[in-house]
Amino acid sequence: MAFHLLEHDRDSAKNLQECLYHALSKVFKCKNCRNFSDQELCNICVDANRDESILCIVETPSDIAAIENIGVYKGLYFVLMGKLSPLDGIGPDELGLDILENIISDKVNLKEVVLATNLTVEGEATAHYIVSILEQFQDRDIKITRIAHGVPFGGELEYLDSNTLAQAFISRILLK
Amino acid sequence: MAFHLLEHDRDSAKNLQECLYHALSKVFKCKNCRNFSDQELCNICVDANRDESILCIVETPSDIAAIENIGVYKGLYFVLMGKLSPLDGIGPDELGLDILENIISDKVNLKEVVLATNLTVEGEATAHYIVSILEQFQDRDIKITRIAHGVPFGGELEYLDSNTLAQAFISRILLK
Repeated sequence: MAFHLLEHDRDSAKNLQECLYHALSKVFKCKNCRNFSDQELCNICVDANRDESILCIVETPSDIAAIENIGVYKGLYFVLMGKLSPLDGIGPDELGLDILENIISDKVNLKEVVLATNLTVEGEATAHYIVSILEQFQDRDIKITRIAHGVPFGGELEYLDSNTLAQAFISRILLK
Repeated sequence: MAFHLLEHDRDSAKNLQECLYHALSKVFKCKNCRNFSDQELCNICVDANRDESILCIVETPSDIAAIENIGVYKGLYFVLMGKLSPLDGIGPDELGLDILENIISDKVNLKEVVLATNLTVEGEATAHYIVSILEQFQDRDIKITRIAHGVPFGGELEYLDSNTLAQAFISRILLK
């Protein structure tokens, strides 16, 4: 990309440099949910129409973009900015889990925490760790939920990995 | 493949011809479940250790192979040998749904029917049609279940299609 811009398209390179300059000087983390924002609080946190009784925990801001695109979730978010990965030196402190505890302590009308970390090994480990942290709030009647494992849309049984197929069988849904 | 065998490997071609000859003369459909079998009834239908109270409906014999590989299902099967596809001239008769009705009528201790057609458009349509057929047995307390939609193992939210992510959110699982 660098060679292409310098050889053939120096105008775009200048444009890109300016965009990056403005982004770096203006975009920081939302003080509340740690999503990227050019204000102190992000658009979602200041939106009075969002449902404050439900909090969705994701790994990255791009996960928020993916979830917002589907349009079925109207609650708030908390961004870990990563996942537990001891070999890379990423522990509970780097994921802002102390901030998460404070948020949950403060939100007295919170009814549900949705764990929407990726369904990878690290994402599952992170979800399990967060469940253990949330045990301190167990007298407050907060539901803890996890996005569903299963067969993706358009999935054909023959080409699925065995873990996914096994999970799809184990958590099969009652139709009638 | 044909050119390679005829030019370089006539012995393998002879072997393949013999295998196909024996397969075509010996392998037919199981009279009970319509799986491929070289006996009147297939290995699964004659196995006394299988759970007769649960029946799994699949599109093809290769789906049975995939499900048997995961080792979590111990019931019986019924193979549609296809899926509803009016444009290709495949209707309820071609899928042996009349045979399926007879099987369910005869199995007095049947407790659950698992619809394990693919999660494609045609597979979903076929599953819906079978649910409507099974309504005639609604006084018999038979559960009808569907393999779960959701995020496959190793799935990352950012790269999922929106239908799958929406379904994973809607059918999220209560952990605590």
